[in-house]
Amino acid sequence: MPQPLGKDARCSIARSLEVLGERWTLLIVREAFWGRTRFSEFRTSLGIAPDVLTDRLTTLVEHGVMERRAYRAEGSRERYEYVLTPAGEELRYVLGALTAWGDQYRPTPAGPATRFVEEPTGAPVQLRFVSSDGRLVDPETVVAVRNQAATASR
Amino acid sequence: MPQPLGKDARCSIARSLEVLGERWTLLIVREAFWGRTRFSEFRTSLGIAPDVLTDRLTTLVEHGVMERRAYRAEGSRERYEYVLTPAGEELRYVLGALTAWGDQYRPTPAGPATRFVEEPTGAPVQLRFVSSDGRLVDPETVVAVRNQAATASR
Repeated sequence: MPQPLGKDARCSIARSLEVLGERWTLLIVREAFWGRTRFSEFRTSLGIAPDVLTDRLTTLVEHGVMERRAYRAEGSRERYEYVLTPAGEELRYVLGALTAWGDQYRPTPAGPATRFVEEPTGAPVQLRFVSSDGRLVDPETVVAVRNQAATASR
Repeated sequence: MPQPLGKDARCSIARSLEVLGERWTLLIVREAFWGRTRFSEFRTSLGIAPDVLTDRLTTLVEHGVMERRAYRAEGSRERYEYVLTPAGEELRYVLGALTAWGDQYRPTPAGPATRFVEEPTGAPVQLRFVSSDGRLVDPETVVAVRNQAATASR
């Protein structure tokens, strides 16, 4: 598991990155969103070294992002699959935001590799800031405010 | 700059992480959202080694996330400040998603350190998936779909 980042023990961004910020981790989560569950699938799809994959999966399981489940295909020995927990599913916002940013600011000629859509229509969806009563907010007016009480020692 | 991640040259998540995925990078962006602009401010606030900070700022400037601007305080020599570009400002969705996830799944007794609010009212805002006509979408129905054309070689 990555070390805590400096003075930031109480910042949710820093605390999220302690779990998610290591190289490969969010790509493993992306593979899980695409429906992959098996060690061999992650390894082949990502081209990741097995020991690194084991380490990242262990971190994700320890922090409740993925669950390790035993399964047995007929005639085979018991194996394990890795499935997103509800906490892992909630990373859809993080992946959606990274996808949108990359599509806009790091585009490739091949076009977007991932699209976020609504089931069952397949209609595209976008991330937007909304108010507590569900009104769409102009993103230019959104600011990040420090909670002084939670960061008083800094 | 981080190396490209394996087979993922065409995935926006992977391409975003090439710029943003290194340790410290998103925390520097967070500091910029909080209004910090100077090398010494980033260094003190984050407790980051100067050579690492220089490296990360260089990556952010090279990729158009931050802009390096000369300024001169009265009676001082010329210095530089680092300011988010429009591409950097667009990371509000990434930071907002990481904040919300950390608040829910990596909470601390001190409570959230950052809140995303609407100016000038200070009313809290949340990230939601919306359809192209602005309707709020049930997040449970949102799925990440691979664009086979863009990932055909995998």
